[in-house]
Amino acid sequence: MSRSTDTWILTAQCPSRLGTVDVVTRFLKENRCYITEQQSFDDSLAERFFIRTEFRPQDPDFDAQAFQAGFATRAEGFEMTFELTAPEARTPVVIMVSKADHCLNDLLYRYRTGQLPLDIRAVVSNHPDLQPLADWHGLPYYHFPITPETKAEQEARVWGVIEESGAELVILARYMQVLSSEMCERLAGRAINIHHSLLPGFKGARPYHQAYEKGVKLVGATAHYINDDLDEGPIITQGVEPVGHADYPEDLVTKGRDIECLTLARAVGYHLERRVFLHRRRTVVFSR
Amino acid sequence: MSRSTDTWILTAQCPSRLGTVDVVTRFLKENRCYITEQQSFDDSLAERFFIRTEFRPQDPDFDAQAFQAGFATRAEGFEMTFELTAPEARTPVVIMVSKADHCLNDLLYRYRTGQLPLDIRAVVSNHPDLQPLADWHGLPYYHFPITPETKAEQEARVWGVIEESGAELVILARYMQVLSSEMCERLAGRAINIHHSLLPGFKGARPYHQAYEKGVKLVGATAHYINDDLDEGPIITQGVEPVGHADYPEDLVTKGRDIECLTLARAVGYHLERRVFLHRRRTVVFSR
Amino acid sequence: MSRSTDTWILTAQCPSRLGTVDVVTRFLKENRCYITEQQSFDDSLAERFFIRTEFRPQDPDFDAQAFQAGFATRAEGFEMTFELTAPEARTPVVIMVSKADHCLNDLLYRYRTGQLPLDIRAVVSNHPDLQPLADWHGLPYYHFPITPETKAEQEARVWGVIEESGAELVILARYMQVLSSEMCERLAGRAINIHHSLLPGFKGARPYHQAYEKGVKLVGATAHYINDDLDEGPIITQGVEPVGHADYPEDLVTKGRDIECLTLARAVGYHLERRVFLHRRRTVVFSR
Amino acid sequence: MSRSTDTWILTAQCPSRLGTVDVVTRFLKENRCYITEQQSFDDSLAERFFIRTEFRPQDPDFDAQAFQAGFATRAEGFEMTFELTAPEARTPVVIMVSKADHCLNDLLYRYRTGQLPLDIRAVVSNHPDLQPLADWHGLPYYHFPITPETKAEQEARVWGVIEESGAELVILARYMQVLSSEMCERLAGRAINIHHSLLPGFKGARPYHQAYEKGVKLVGATAHYINDDLDEGPIITQGVEPVGHADYPEDLVTKGRDIECLTLARAVGYHLERRVFLHRRRTVVFSR
Repeated sequence: MSRSTDTWILTAQCPSRLGTVDVVTRFLKENRCYITEQQSFDDSLAERFFIRTEFRPQDPDFDAQAFQAGFATRAEGFEMTFELTAPEARTPVVIMVSKADHCLNDLLYRYRTGQLPLDIRAVVSNHPDLQPLADWHGLPYYHFPITPETKAEQEARVWGVIEESGAELVILARYMQVLSSEMCERLAGRAINIHHSLLPGFKGARPYHQAYEKGVKLVGATAHYINDDLDEGPIITQGVEPVGHADYPEDLVTKGRDIECLTLARAVGYHLERRVFLHRRRTVVFSR
Repeated sequence: MSRSTDTWILTAQCPSRLGTVDVVTRFLKENRCYITEQQSFDDSLAERFFIRTEFRPQDPDFDAQAFQAGFATRAEGFEMTFELTAPEARTPVVIMVSKADHCLNDLLYRYRTGQLPLDIRAVVSNHPDLQPLADWHGLPYYHFPITPETKAEQEARVWGVIEESGAELVILARYMQVLSSEMCERLAGRAINIHHSLLPGFKGARPYHQAYEKGVKLVGATAHYINDDLDEGPIITQGVEPVGHADYPEDLVTKGRDIECLTLARAVGYHLERRVFLHRRRTVVFSR
Repeated sequence: MSRSTDTWILTAQCPSRLGTVDVVTRFLKENRCYITEQQSFDDSLAERFFIRTEFRPQDPDFDAQAFQAGFATRAEGFEMTFELTAPEARTPVVIMVSKADHCLNDLLYRYRTGQLPLDIRAVVSNHPDLQPLADWHGLPYYHFPITPETKAEQEARVWGVIEESGAELVILARYMQVLSSEMCERLAGRAINIHHSLLPGFKGARPYHQAYEKGVKLVGATAHYINDDLDEGPIITQGVEPVGHADYPEDLVTKGRDIECLTLARAVGYHLERRVFLHRRRTVVFSR
Repeated sequence: MSRSTDTWILTAQCPSRLGTVDVVTRFLKENRCYITEQQSFDDSLAERFFIRTEFRPQDPDFDAQAFQAGFATRAEGFEMTFELTAPEARTPVVIMVSKADHCLNDLLYRYRTGQLPLDIRAVVSNHPDLQPLADWHGLPYYHFPITPETKAEQEARVWGVIEESGAELVILARYMQVLSSEMCERLAGRAINIHHSLLPGFKGARPYHQAYEKGVKLVGATAHYINDDLDEGPIITQGVEPVGHADYPEDLVTKGRDIECLTLARAVGYHLERRVFLHRRRTVVFSR
């Protein structure tokens, strides 16, 4: 698991075809790259191939640009898209929150201790409440209030921060606003949301209250990519927690917090380690 | 957990009111009944009280009928319904199946080894396939084929077996037919069904295929009482199993079998041990 | 679960005898106390009775002192020890740490958000590292370095803080020092430790490295009371996490952090809610 | 997951060296074998490489023998051992039992329904009790009683059945005898045992009683290969089940049965699907 400081990641996907693994592994061999871990999967229903490789270049003067240029030529013949990730890469991120702080607190802890290789550029909220938490971690905090009238304008300001910060990933850590479909489109595939139910079980607002009404014996959380269909984006991972008759709706809210934190952190970790592949409405996750 | 051979169970429920616990425990004390385990819960939203007590009569000539008559007088003032269950009681049961045998196989194993205190009176099916399994356990097997035209008639025959057998509980161990609303009403609260999804997630047919389409990362099973609303009966317990991108729909079906067996067996066990209380559309389960 | 602001807790234990439940519930009834939740268990091997009751006094001028005095008289005849806990009670606590901050960070989050009803009086450490974290939460931090030569002296200083602060509970949140047997005795039954293994699996130092050597496929954490026998104190709760071949010892350390936090927080929550009963080397936990 | 009927498996291991992946994937490409799933891992501490590949030959006249011969030449240069497994291969197995039937019942169910690709050649026991179960599945049952005096002789008879049956795998499905070290050696790496504890937690006899004494809150099961050191063989997989204060030793025994069945079945499944690699005292398991 623990990537040493000299381990690179190569991920790729393309249509199913004979030789998809070989084109990757042969190139790595030719470039004297030592493979420490590899997983590939060929989805026979979607007819799509996915591969993830961790490797250590054997030559001290490994040239990433040359590697990419060289591999691009090979990949082309397979209509293969790929990404090369450097050992110490930290993904630039913007985190969006409202008032609930448990997911933010958890992410910032993992950020501070280096458990998640994030480069947090900003925390954005429609409320001022979580500013002290951001401050303590030395992070810029943008408070953009929102009303039905100012929604478009507010989203434009949020988008401005995302753009200017150079964020590659947006984490919605219990951001309690419904994004406009324009915003969803812009964020499609590059924003992770945590929904506090086992989607597609309880969509929409107050899922724990819905769950209570139905008398369920398990509650859960779903981390998924944003796409154009609210609460229907491709699922990355899900977590679950047993509940009982003595748990009133407010207890479910409390009980759900831990599983929300863990599920979101796991999804973000998978994304940062390039373990998640997005294809249409489903994901391939090479977890461990 | 293991009830000794001299342990009785008293369960009761009534509207919330001061003294509901006391009316039970005082009576037990007066009758020299030794309480080994007790759980009570007062649902403040439903304003309903539930209690379950395991006890050992201290007097060798404990008179159950006198106990019941005596307690009935006390209970009346609280509009309390109650049930007294004898130490060696085995609940008479009819099991309904179609072609899938995993749940039946599992139940029969627990029956044969005494793990579930069932008195299985009959196995009823719309297919002949599972007859050998019933035979080996020495159980009568009724094969009642069903077609859209003969549905009413078939259900009448099924009902006949249930009635004549004296079954107090019906277990739908993957019976793949939609019951008529008349049948549902008759079975309301005394039939346990296993649905192969985390209800209310994927209602209706082929839930694993629905789950695959949505790309979920957890599949599950729900054991619930039958009521008038199909797939919406009060939930007793739920189980869950992680799945991944490499699990095709038929893999989900296979993977789901274990969790279906375990979830159904757990629900049946709770029911037989009088741990489940039904009130409107929800259950109280004093599990352990 | 969520105790309303007017819910008291009465817990008691005594030798097994007829009437143990009745003596509690009758007194509550006589004092017009409304029982919202109750659990009792009679351990037939240890011949010991345990009961936990949540109740709401119906009279606005409920007199806790009179209640205690009155109940003491009844309890005496049963050699029953008991504790009455007020609705808003916050247990005074001292937390002990070394350098690892994950458990402290987690506890302080739950403290700050009111999830755990703690009254943290001090954080004590043999290292200065976690002072900023305590500072941010406005908590006094005592840095008492330790060497083999100064161990007795250091423990005396720690004990001084515990005594003076009026702490009723000490939480060892990854305090990496072996306590002297004298200190263990003083803390017996009032200190909770988190051990990073599934005790009694890997006692002593570096349990994750031991686990790696054995090639286990699950790692875990154990929250237990301190007693005179190191790593053998009565277990409150345990948690578990799957691991695999690709997890090197340092990965186990990382992976174990979440389960350590959750397990310790759960144990502390059980303790604060008076759900844990200690009897000899085992606990009774009326969890939910 | 579900291997189609034309999917082969190639597994291999060798010392760590540049090109270990390439030597496999290139050969597959050259032989027009379509890789559907692949996992490789290079253990940097053990300096050992492991790979598992599922593939479909594109040519209808795929020649397995020629493939093996051809690959042997390439593998030699890497000191690589490998195994090629045909699509419909069923591993010949002998199952050993004593009196407890839950694991046997579970394995025979999965055998009968084709869930586990076993070819069960015989069931061997030191007791006559489980003969009817074997009979119903049409399997030969050998009853070889054992006494301290006849142990050597009995093991010789058992070994005779294993040899003559051509079994490649022996499953100890709660065989309650301690095998002689000679027998252990013979079975090393080709026999799977289920131990009813979270090894190395409670070695030896009556682990549930040991667990009760310690007051653990989780019990578990460990499936492992037999080697020369009893209860210390390389672990394949482990399962866990929560328990509480109300579970007496005999309850732990009952509760443990489900997790024993599931853990053993999972281990056997991994083994049959060639997901388990044995290297010294640890395993690599490419699970899913």
